Amino acid sequence: MQIAQHLQQTPTSYIREILSDATAEGVISLAGGLPASDHFPIDLIEPSLQSLARAKPEVFQYGETQGYRPLLDFFQQIYQLPETHSALVCNGSQQALDLIARTFLNPGDGVAMEAPSYLGALQVFAIAQARVESVTQQADGPDLNELAELFASGKVKLFYAVPDFHNPTGLSWSLATRKAVAELCIAHGITLIEDAPYRELRFTGTALPLVSSFCPDHALVLRSFSKIATPGFRLGVATGPSQWLDEMIKVKQAADLHTNLPMQEVLLQLLQHQDFPKHIDHLRQLYRSRYQCLADALHKELPAGCEFDDIEGGMFIWLNLPEGDPMAIAKAAIKEKVAVVPSTVFYDQGTEGKPALRLNFSYPSPDELQVAAQRLAKVLAG
Amino acid sequence: MQIAQHLQQTPTSYIREILSDATAEGVISLAGGLPASDHFPIDLIEPSLQSLARAKPEVFQYGETQGYRPLLDFFQQIYQLPETHSALVCNGSQQALDLIARTFLNPGDGVAMEAPSYLGALQVFAIAQARVESVTQQADGPDLNELAELFASGKVKLFYAVPDFHNPTGLSWSLATRKAVAELCIAHGITLIEDAPYRELRFTGTALPLVSSFCPDHALVLRSFSKIATPGFRLGVATGPSQWLDEMIKVKQAADLHTNLPMQEVLLQLLQHQDFPKHIDHLRQLYRSRYQCLADALHKELPAGCEFDDIEGGMFIWLNLPEGDPMAIAKAAIKEKVAVVPSTVFYDQGTEGKPALRLNFSYPSPDELQVAAQRLAKVLAG
Repeated sequence: MQIAQHLQQTPTSYIREILSDATAEGVISLAGGLPASDHFPIDLIEPSLQSLARAKPEVFQYGETQGYRPLLDFFQQIYQLPETHSALVCNGSQQALDLIARTFLNPGDGVAMEAPSYLGALQVFAIAQARVESVTQQADGPDLNELAELFASGKVKLFYAVPDFHNPTGLSWSLATRKAVAELCIAHGITLIEDAPYRELRFTGTALPLVSSFCPDHALVLRSFSKIATPGFRLGVATGPSQWLDEMIKVKQAADLHTNLPMQEVLLQLLQHQDFPKHIDHLRQLYRSRYQCLADALHKELPAGCEFDDIEGGMFIWLNLPEGDPMAIAKAAIKEKVAVVPSTVFYDQGTEGKPALRLNFSYPSPDELQVAAQRLAKVLAG
Repeated sequence: MQIAQHLQQTPTSYIREILSDATAEGVISLAGGLPASDHFPIDLIEPSLQSLARAKPEVFQYGETQGYRPLLDFFQQIYQLPETHSALVCNGSQQALDLIARTFLNPGDGVAMEAPSYLGALQVFAIAQARVESVTQQADGPDLNELAELFASGKVKLFYAVPDFHNPTGLSWSLATRKAVAELCIAHGITLIEDAPYRELRFTGTALPLVSSFCPDHALVLRSFSKIATPGFRLGVATGPSQWLDEMIKVKQAADLHTNLPMQEVLLQLLQHQDFPKHIDHLRQLYRSRYQCLADALHKELPAGCEFDDIEGGMFIWLNLPEGDPMAIAKAAIKEKVAVVPSTVFYDQGTEGKPALRLNFSYPSPDELQVAAQRLAKVLAG
């Protein structure tokens, strides 16, 4: 049976390939985007799991497509959604993005993205047969002149962005950029898709408002609980104007009826737990120390010309290389038993950025980060 | 923001509308497809939930797109999959169907279905912009002459079917029909999508082999755990030739990365529990008694000309009406405080069957079933 034509152009994921090599014996992986395994809030989750079967029998039956009502009510309140806005619980924010593409994009519709960009978003837009329009990413966000010109051209319908601790570069937008982008979205009738999975993982500097807070009726916000709760739950939420969410709910109904309910109840109890803020603080401190460990080791070990910007949160360092083919370097690194992701995979086909590697520091232990930096130095010196 | 063009033709779901009326105060609902709420295997599930956090910490991290490896291994074994076949865990079998459509269907591709047919499948194929080709359903399965002619015409790529206790009609295919359909699929290179959510709910008669057992390399099988475990878990599985599953896995990766892991571990423990076969036996006896209760009440209460075939399992009675507009009758029934689903919604746009109502007997209590039959009789006599 032939696969559908629109999938025949989808690039095979290098990340899939490298991640399978990355799990080989002795390989230290800086390639994934995994939170630290030993620091999930198990103590806070365990009592909910233990009482679930007796306390909440309703979570075993079919539920509403939109989500588990007590969790939806909680989101409405903590995100201070106006009456005209609502929430949709999804199987991770990845599904929320996929539902947006399926609900609003026709083949050939334009989507603006910073380059480089999140691979999972590139895959979603490729399947939707959207046309990706890349905008240069600067240290404080997208190039505003480029963005204004692109918006004015009428070529795009959506702007997909990760303004806090971007994947793959770790960069965050300045306050001025946030306001300017929101104004551009309003002025040109472009919908902002604000993907905020790393937002809570700020370990230094001052938190800035969501971009969508400056253009709430022109934005859909995607939040993930994979980084602050656990990825295994596969829970995320989309919020925004109800007339858009209502259309996405219809597609979700056909896609999988609704998201699993027991995990929604467990998440609700976790988010309401009095010790949950402490858990987030713990993660921030943990990731700050791991970041510092990797950053120090890289500064010490790497040859001249390999540079990276300081970051204030998230899970990634974007290591700019003076030269070379990042894919070849990543393959050579695997032979030295360290896995990294080459910059190439984060660009839409046809665009190409400066050579770089994405390095994850949230998952490996401090010892592993140090050894990984030494191995990487050997490859880059080679 | 405009929705995508291919969604503008999707009919609004009457079931959504009627289900919201069906939950109004005092209404007895025979409209849903819900299993009995008080009979979930809570006792068997509870110990797994209680030990999960400590015993299986790996279920909190990201996992493989294909599914939780111990559960996949279990499926490989119990379904006796050959080496060339594999399994993909999905968010209910609904997602498996959606992934099949997204992976293999181009806009305009033909899909054969029995008429009437499962509404959730009609929705999936509408979103995929497939062309549905209806085949008449007879008491022992699809009209084989029609099917042979349709397959020979080259107009269809897939045949979607529910051979065991069909939704909405409750009918099952005979052994001869199963073999004949499998031969037709092989002869014409058509892929059978065998959807088997009700298969374990046989309460009388003899179990027959899966249709796909006669054409394993020309079929994808969808199994659901919503009816035998719990729907809230949102777990189903697709099995079939690995080269097809591999393509679906790529789409699932973009769609939601993977299905939630804690529920997969709990399901695995449930399916392996020594008392699980007893639970299935209990459900069969329960549904037989509820079916008998509704059938007896209908025979006693209904006016002449309202008839239904005996069924051997599942969750539905298909009540044929002598005349009238089923949609108008369903609306009148709501006023009499009984909710049913009119036959109209189970047909693709453009086709129309004889007037009928789908009546669910798995969810309401015996007392409710009796009162519902009386109320329905009043509407139909009216």
